[in-house]
Amino acid sequence: MSLLDQTLTLVRVDSVSGREGEIAAVVFEKLQSAAHLDVERIGDNVVASTRGHHAHRVIVAGHLDTVPGDASAGAIIGDRVVGLGACDMKGSVAIMLDEAVRDVARSLEVTWIFYAREEVARSQSGLLELAELRPELLAADAAILAEPTGGSVEAGCQGTLRIVVTMKGARAHTARPYTGRNAIHRIGGLISRVASYQPRTAVIDGVTFTEQLQVVRVDGGIANNVVPDVASVTLNHRIAPDRGLDEAAGAVKDFIGDLLEVDDAFEIGDYAPPAAPSLANPFIARLVEVSGVPARAKVGWTDVATFAERDIPAANYGAGDPLLAHRSDEFVTLGELEEFARVLRKLLQ
Amino acid sequence: MSLLDQTLTLVRVDSVSGREGEIAAVVFEKLQSAAHLDVERIGDNVVASTRGHHAHRVIVAGHLDTVPGDASAGAIIGDRVVGLGACDMKGSVAIMLDEAVRDVARSLEVTWIFYAREEVARSQSGLLELAELRPELLAADAAILAEPTGGSVEAGCQGTLRIVVTMKGARAHTARPYTGRNAIHRIGGLISRVASYQPRTAVIDGVTFTEQLQVVRVDGGIANNVVPDVASVTLNHRIAPDRGLDEAAGAVKDFIGDLLEVDDAFEIGDYAPPAAPSLANPFIARLVEVSGVPARAKVGWTDVATFAERDIPAANYGAGDPLLAHRSDEFVTLGELEEFARVLRKLLQ
Repeated sequence: MSLLDQTLTLVRVDSVSGREGEIAAVVFEKLQSAAHLDVERIGDNVVASTRGHHAHRVIVAGHLDTVPGDASAGAIIGDRVVGLGACDMKGSVAIMLDEAVRDVARSLEVTWIFYAREEVARSQSGLLELAELRPELLAADAAILAEPTGGSVEAGCQGTLRIVVTMKGARAHTARPYTGRNAIHRIGGLISRVASYQPRTAVIDGVTFTEQLQVVRVDGGIANNVVPDVASVTLNHRIAPDRGLDEAAGAVKDFIGDLLEVDDAFEIGDYAPPAAPSLANPFIARLVEVSGVPARAKVGWTDVATFAERDIPAANYGAGDPLLAHRSDEFVTLGELEEFARVLRKLLQ
Repeated sequence: MSLLDQTLTLVRVDSVSGREGEIAAVVFEKLQSAAHLDVERIGDNVVASTRGHHAHRVIVAGHLDTVPGDASAGAIIGDRVVGLGACDMKGSVAIMLDEAVRDVARSLEVTWIFYAREEVARSQSGLLELAELRPELLAADAAILAEPTGGSVEAGCQGTLRIVVTMKGARAHTARPYTGRNAIHRIGGLISRVASYQPRTAVIDGVTFTEQLQVVRVDGGIANNVVPDVASVTLNHRIAPDRGLDEAAGAVKDFIGDLLEVDDAFEIGDYAPPAAPSLANPFIARLVEVSGVPARAKVGWTDVATFAERDIPAANYGAGDPLLAHRSDEFVTLGELEEFARVLRKLLQ
């Protein structure tokens, strides 16, 4: 079966986050056909490990789920597979499966990880489930996360932080607003401040991470004739790997702090840490070399941070254009699939 | 029972707009005890009419509902009733009930109207419900609306207009906000513009009306990692009696128009017209005289406009400080209750 056909087969299996049972069964069955692999299914995650005796082991990991959409609409059009998850990331999963079942002489051991629930809250991640239930399966010297990267190694990842800022006012009748203080009017100034944010960049290991700060939600309002006494915004801050939670939250607070008053609230919400690029790691350096193009910083958060938290240097590298991820018209091309297969094969042999 | 106790009894009956069934029953029962009144309950409105044969009839009207809050927290503290609705307007309702049931010789007929759902969209008003179902009950030569007026007759009223402005953007991942456009960031500028509004004033019949413009609601947000492509604000505009709907809406649109783009929306919502002061009407003039202090312009919309639309000259006059309406610490004092009772008694006897 061609790489396009193998990808389409996976695309056509509905695996919206939380419904990965069927695709996990498909993956498990294919891997079990390879006698050289130890294969386990843990929940809706599947792990396949080579069982040689090389000193070094690397992980190649990819998630099985997609954002919500219609799996049955997948199709091959010319040299590409078009459809939900084609780019993010069933094309890469198809290549991983194809490479995993090839019983070839390798210079290092490989653990292939296929995991569930990446596209939802991090607390639900199948990779965290594996790390908790079977931490020994994640033992490795380095890891490749096969998220779509458009042909380049995308190094490290941004952290992501949610902050809720609540501003207070004093309730009044809208006919007499001067007897109160409009909290939404106050939050307007805060929004304008955030809109004026100029991204901070950080160059680490020669790649440039660009931070971001966006208002992702705004709430306020009591009734059509009431000056509201409370309003809030939710901010999403994308953090370069040279900062941790405290420093990143502090920088946001410094940026808007002069607008805050004693009764206002600045509350830290969900946080996922950034991951350093690890380009000095020999395996990651070799990955960059084999890819044939310079590494760049990952834009966005990925599970390379999950590996980094466990002291496993990791990088993003997979088939497909990252700008297409989560779009209704996402696709992956035969050329992208072949190039990912070429790099994996050269690297792991 | 003292005036404070009578007021507290009503305050303690939860009657947030839409839940006036219980208070309507209390009012109906008390009015029915007076043999000289014809009493009817229509929905959650109660109307009591004297049945003499005087040539002139006046209406004294008040609403039974309150803005949202906790009715059970009402209390008598010293010489005042403190709690939700104490000022707006259960103090006046208590006096109205007390005066209505007194079977005294009068020089004119009186229709006492207690109505539901004044504190919400005008389309839901119990007074409009009465006007539609039983227009003959609103037949009168003049009307007093017993909204809190702080000892002065408050003439006419402002109009009130709701406008919803929706701004568009382009959805993107928050890690790559530059591939989209944040609609909440746009709405921040609109909020700041509205916050900078300087009120227009208009002098009519010697009293000064002051317009207002406030953001009363803001909405926007899709998910914590998505740059939102739509955000909206709801504006409340208070209009002087020298302007109608088109002129008032046009003025708001002119004020913010340079911020709007072709895909944005400027939508007219609920509108309640202003009412001119009717200070030349003999009954209203007599009310001003008995009150003992000069009339001033009503700040805010009231149902004097509902009477004005039906060619019934009306004015606002009731117990309590209008500045306290809709505040969590609203109250009415014994002195205010007694003064309202004195004026009503003198005027209607």
